[in-house]
Amino acid sequence: MKTRLTELLGIEAPIICGGMMRVGTADLAAAVSNAGGLGVMTALTQKTPKGLHDEIERCKSTTDRPFGVNLTVGVVATKIDYDEYVDVITQSGVKIVETAGRSPEPFMERFKAAGIKVIHKCVTVRHSLAAERLGVDVISIDGFECAGHPGEHDVGGLVLFPAAARALKVPVVASGGIADGNGLAAALALGCDGVNMGTRFMATKEAPIHDGIKQKIVEMDENQTQLIFRSYRNTARVYKNSVAMKVAEIEAAGGGFEQVHEYVSGANQEKAWSTGDIEAGMITAGLSGALVSDIPTCQELIRTIVEDAENIIRHRLAGMAGRA
Amino acid sequence: MKTRLTELLGIEAPIICGGMMRVGTADLAAAVSNAGGLGVMTALTQKTPKGLHDEIERCKSTTDRPFGVNLTVGVVATKIDYDEYVDVITQSGVKIVETAGRSPEPFMERFKAAGIKVIHKCVTVRHSLAAERLGVDVISIDGFECAGHPGEHDVGGLVLFPAAARALKVPVVASGGIADGNGLAAALALGCDGVNMGTRFMATKEAPIHDGIKQKIVEMDENQTQLIFRSYRNTARVYKNSVAMKVAEIEAAGGGFEQVHEYVSGANQEKAWSTGDIEAGMITAGLSGALVSDIPTCQELIRTIVEDAENIIRHRLAGMAGRA
Repeated sequence: MKTRLTELLGIEAPIICGGMMRVGTADLAAAVSNAGGLGVMTALTQKTPKGLHDEIERCKSTTDRPFGVNLTVGVVATKIDYDEYVDVITQSGVKIVETAGRSPEPFMERFKAAGIKVIHKCVTVRHSLAAERLGVDVISIDGFECAGHPGEHDVGGLVLFPAAARALKVPVVASGGIADGNGLAAALALGCDGVNMGTRFMATKEAPIHDGIKQKIVEMDENQTQLIFRSYRNTARVYKNSVAMKVAEIEAAGGGFEQVHEYVSGANQEKAWSTGDIEAGMITAGLSGALVSDIPTCQELIRTIVEDAENIIRHRLAGMAGRA
Repeated sequence: MKTRLTELLGIEAPIICGGMMRVGTADLAAAVSNAGGLGVMTALTQKTPKGLHDEIERCKSTTDRPFGVNLTVGVVATKIDYDEYVDVITQSGVKIVETAGRSPEPFMERFKAAGIKVIHKCVTVRHSLAAERLGVDVISIDGFECAGHPGEHDVGGLVLFPAAARALKVPVVASGGIADGNGLAAALALGCDGVNMGTRFMATKEAPIHDGIKQKIVEMDENQTQLIFRSYRNTARVYKNSVAMKVAEIEAAGGGFEQVHEYVSGANQEKAWSTGDIEAGMITAGLSGALVSDIPTCQELIRTIVEDAENIIRHRLAGMAGRA
C-alpha cells in the first residue's frame, strides 16, 4: 500500500504502532517495523537516557527497517531531564521521532539538525496546526476513542480525522478506534494517510505483556473502557475494571487527585502487568479493543489489515461505486 | 451507487435524512427523496394523527419516490396515542417507517401486515440485535457524534458502526458524524450499507428552518456542540450556545430536571427557530456540523456526496491499494 506516509517514512504499510508506556520496547518496535509498519519505542519506558541508548541499539540489532522513538513531554509528574533523552535520540541515528504531550518546540531544532522526521501526536485541530507551523512532518491525531489521553473535547475520529485532514498540509495519521482493515480503509477515505494503533498491538504475540492481558483485550466489547481523571482535566481512557470503577467513584464523590493517586498506587499496577490479572491494577486500553478478536504475530496482523483494506477497496467499495 | 440498502428501499443513493422533530416535514422529505435519497418525515412533528395524514398526502403529491415516516416512541413526556399515528401510517400507503426511542415491538405486526419496511434507530449493538430478532429490516445506529440522543455509552461511530455491522445480518446505516463523501465512503468501508444524516440536511435550501440557523451550522467547528441532560440519563447533543451552557451549569450544580425544564421552557425555542437567533433557545445539532460548509439544495448535496465518495473510492483509495 502506498500513501504519503509510506513514502515519507520509507515503510511498506501505512500503520504505526504508536508509543505506549511499558509496552513500547525494542521487541515490539522491531517486530512492527520488520512487518512493514512503523514500530515506535517509548523513550521514558527506559528509566535512564543510558537505558534508552541501549534499547535503541537492541532495536537496531533486530531490524534494519525504519523505527521511531516516542518522547512524551510534561505529562508524567516526575522530574525528567528531557535534554539528555533528546541527546541520546539525536546521536543514535534514529530517523523518526514521535512527540506527544506538550509542544515539541523546545526540541525541534535539534531533531531537524539530526535529520529526524517528527510525528507529533495531539488531540485537537488547533494544536495540530500549531505543530505544523513548527515544522513537524506528520500529525498523528487522537480521537475520542483512543486509549490513554483523548483530551477534554471528546471529538470522535469520524469528525476529528477529516477536520484535521482538511486543515493540515502534512500527512495525517488517524489514531484511536482503529484495529482492522475496515478501519484502515475508513481512515484513508476520511483523508488520512495512515493509521496509528495501540490497543490492537497490545494483543500481538510480540507485545511484552502478560498473555492474560492480551486475552482480556480479545474479550472486550465496546463498553469495556472507562474515562477517568476527567475531573482533573487530565482525562484517560482505561480498561473498565474494578480499579477504574473505583477511581470513577472517588471522582464522582468529589475526591481530589491526591486521594485517587493514593488509591491507584495501592492498586498494584506492576502486578496487573506481570501476572495478567487485569483486576489488579489500571490498564490503558482503547475502544478499538471491541474490534480485536485474536492474538496474531505483528507480521500476520499487518499483512491481514493491509490485505483486508485492499480487498475492501477493490471489491466491496469498487462494487458499490460501479463503473465511472 | 448500489448497496444492500439502495436495493432494499428502492432508492438511488444510500443516504437517509433521518427523522428530525420540527425539521422533518413533507417539504424536506420530498426534496431528499426526489434527489435519490430517502427522505423521512417525523410523525410527531404533526400535532394530530389527522395532521400526519395530511402531511403524508402533501409529500406524496410532491414526490413519487419512496419516502419514510419516523415514529419516535416514549421519549416525549406528553401523552400521545401512538396507535392512531400507526393507523394513519399503515393506511397511507407509505412503505418505509423509521422507528426510534423504545422498541418497535408493539407495532411490528401492523407494520409488517401493511408491507412496511422498518428501519429501527438505536444506539447500542445490544438493542440493535434485539430489534433484528423482532424482524426489523434495517438498523440505523447512532454513534456518539450524533445530534439528539446518543445514549449513555459514548461509543464513537468508528467503533460502533463496525461492531454493529459484524453483529447484524440486516443492513446497517451509519448515523452521526457524517456529512460528506469522505464520511459515506468511510461508513461503507466500516461495513455499513448507507448513512443517515441530520445536521447536514438542516443546512440545505429546502430545510424548513430559518437561514440564520443554517448559517450557524455552516460556521460550526468540532467544538461547537454540548452534551446536556447526562445527569438525568437522557443525554442530548445540542448546539453549544448560551442556553446549552446554562443547562450544563445547572446540571453541574446538581440541579434537577424540573429546574432545567423550567429554564429551557423559558429560553424561547420557537423564537430560535423562527427568528434564526441561535442564542434564543435550544437547537439540536451534531458534531458533523464541523464538516458542513455550504447550504446547497438536497439535489446538489446528494449528487456531490455520491460523486465525492465514488471519486474517493475509484481514485484516492484505488491508487493507494494499487493493482492486485
